[in-house]
Amino acid sequence: MLSPSLEDYLEEIYRLSTLKDNIRVRDIADQLSVSSPSVVKALKKLNGENYINYERYSEISLTPKGKKLGNLLVKRNAVLQEFLTVIHSYCDKGKEAEAMEHYLSSPTISAIENLIAFMHQDQVKKMFDEFNNSIIDQHWSEYIQK
Amino acid sequence: MLSPSLEDYLEEIYRLSTLKDNIRVRDIADQLSVSSPSVVKALKKLNGENYINYERYSEISLTPKGKKLGNLLVKRNAVLQEFLTVIHSYCDKGKEAEAMEHYLSSPTISAIENLIAFMHQDQVKKMFDEFNNSIIDQHWSEYIQK
Repeated sequence: MLSPSLEDYLEEIYRLSTLKDNIRVRDIADQLSVSSPSVVKALKKLNGENYINYERYSEISLTPKGKKLGNLLVKRNAVLQEFLTVIHSYCDKGKEAEAMEHYLSSPTISAIENLIAFMHQDQVKKMFDEFNNSIIDQHWSEYIQK
Repeated sequence: MLSPSLEDYLEEIYRLSTLKDNIRVRDIADQLSVSSPSVVKALKKLNGENYINYERYSEISLTPKGKKLGNLLVKRNAVLQEFLTVIHSYCDKGKEAEAMEHYLSSPTISAIENLIAFMHQDQVKKMFDEFNNSIIDQHWSEYIQK
């Protein structure tokens, strides 16, 4: 299993690979706000574990194993951001999904995906909106009574 | 802010304080499966930050600040275990809640609490059960078709 930090690198490499043909160390460093030497260190580890092909001064490319996991990591992040949106969490969704993602098991990610599909149904969405509004009303009436 | 590890210690001390009058280093070590010297180190830090009163060979007690945060930490853990139950995640709920809890912001914990209350309504519960059954049926029919 990859460390949270290496998962972040692989996730970002996969994301970049869907946007451009030639990924450079600088691109990854910019996206993750880290130094180029840190990126190179991570690339060497990912190369050693056969997630990417990397040699100094040559192109960075994903192996089939890297593509598969990278795709899953990007999807996992999207699922969590969607979850935070669906439940109306007033947080920084990108940052929070990033913090959560490494600590959730596959069964929980699947269950969350399932919950999102459930919550996206028109009737459920309407009921959840009504439920939230009734809570807001309750808070307001408590506020006014004070 | 406390580190995840110190949060775990404080959470456990609070939990123990609701069960017994005299909390000993050994009790905490047993509950968290760590060594007594590790507990003592943590107790000194929590004492230094005014969450507990602790002197060697004397009783361990929570300060008002420690009681307040300890209670919140125990509640947060319970909310996450309940969330994992409500969404039917087939994971080790204790372990997963433990792993997640340090990385969620307060707005997300509140939103999850709100979601749980919504999902506990009889009608929603019934709809979610039906939704899950229809997914299982779909998987089975795909399986049979193969």
